[in-house]
Amino acid sequence: MFIGAQVSLYPMTSGFVGVISSALGALDPYRGDLRIETDDISTLMVGVPEPLFRAMRDLFAAAARGPDHVTLNATISRGCPGEPDDPSCRCETLAVAQGQPLAARQADALAAVRDAPVAGVEIDVQFSLYVMGADRHMDEIYGCIGFLKGSGVFLRSKNFCTRLRGDAGAVFEAVRQAFLRFGPAEGHVTIDLTASANSPSPR
Amino acid sequence: MFIGAQVSLYPMTSGFVGVISSALGALDPYRGDLRIETDDISTLMVGVPEPLFRAMRDLFAAAARGPDHVTLNATISRGCPGEPDDPSCRCETLAVAQGQPLAARQADALAAVRDAPVAGVEIDVQFSLYVMGADRHMDEIYGCIGFLKGSGVFLRSKNFCTRLRGDAGAVFEAVRQAFLRFGPAEGHVTIDLTASANSPSPR
Repeated sequence: MFIGAQVSLYPMTSGFVGVISSALGALDPYRGDLRIETDDISTLMVGVPEPLFRAMRDLFAAAARGPDHVTLNATISRGCPGEPDDPSCRCETLAVAQGQPLAARQADALAAVRDAPVAGVEIDVQFSLYVMGADRHMDEIYGCIGFLKGSGVFLRSKNFCTRLRGDAGAVFEAVRQAFLRFGPAEGHVTIDLTASANSPSPR
Repeated sequence: MFIGAQVSLYPMTSGFVGVISSALGALDPYRGDLRIETDDISTLMVGVPEPLFRAMRDLFAAAARGPDHVTLNATISRGCPGEPDDPSCRCETLAVAQGQPLAARQADALAAVRDAPVAGVEIDVQFSLYVMGADRHMDEIYGCIGFLKGSGVFLRSKNFCTRLRGDAGAVFEAVRQAFLRFGPAEGHVTIDLTASANSPSPR
């Protein structure tokens, strides 16, 4: 199993280099748990979902606490058959979810969002969940949407994606649960995520 | 069949509203062929791949010709079983690709990139192709990567995605060919795309 994300932070300000550099400090607590490598387009983070999503949450929340409009884009993946097996990506929660019926996975996901720590910053997210190599992939996707509708951070459905809104703690936990508990535990599952804060556009 | 994209443009400048507003003029020639709707996170474009990818190319090229660092993110989808059938999305190229062996589709894709008009602006792209609901989805993805490696705009493979670099005309045509000719013609295929220009980071 290989789990990780390609993550980019986009501050809509001429001082974008400073905003990015300062937000990157939020990744420091995770450098022991994640492999982190940056190039000119994105930052690769490799490791299990708990620190992976916390790192993305804290990176984005740090930037979103400033005055500037800022967005984050992430390509998140687990189980891609083209990636090497990585012992650092062994994930207990995936193993537990394996074999559980959909309703039990939805209940566990809801409990996790309820228990998510409050980050203290309001954000918008839209994301798509993709389940590969499964004949009935839409059942898992509809099951995930059912969970999201009860999660307290569901805003609305859009073409190709789902909108969430709320505290960064609950929102990133909802996306982590979507990633962990829907689609086969050993399967190839990906998420295409956009987070936004401080947009001047009317919400 | 339903085909479209959720597209966002991110100029890394305090004058981002002006850059976006001015680049949006590049979409005017496509408003007859595409349904275009904007909210606070992204712009939905619905229609067949030829105007769809040209619209994204021209929108991004317009912004990339300015001095500012600018990125574009797009969630592109065809054949999602959760979307309504839309007559405006009927696509001849998909019908032709259906049933063609991989080598013939690769050859057609290469010819299309060779013939792509020059946009006159150099860009970087990274993207992931996702093929849903197929047992052997990686065969199509590896077939697509094979095409990309010969396309003249391949830069390198990264975890979870492929990097392209070159003129915006050839690069967006390569992504359009990936979207059109790989994965089942009637299947659910998506792309997660990031384009970047004028980055101050060392390439």
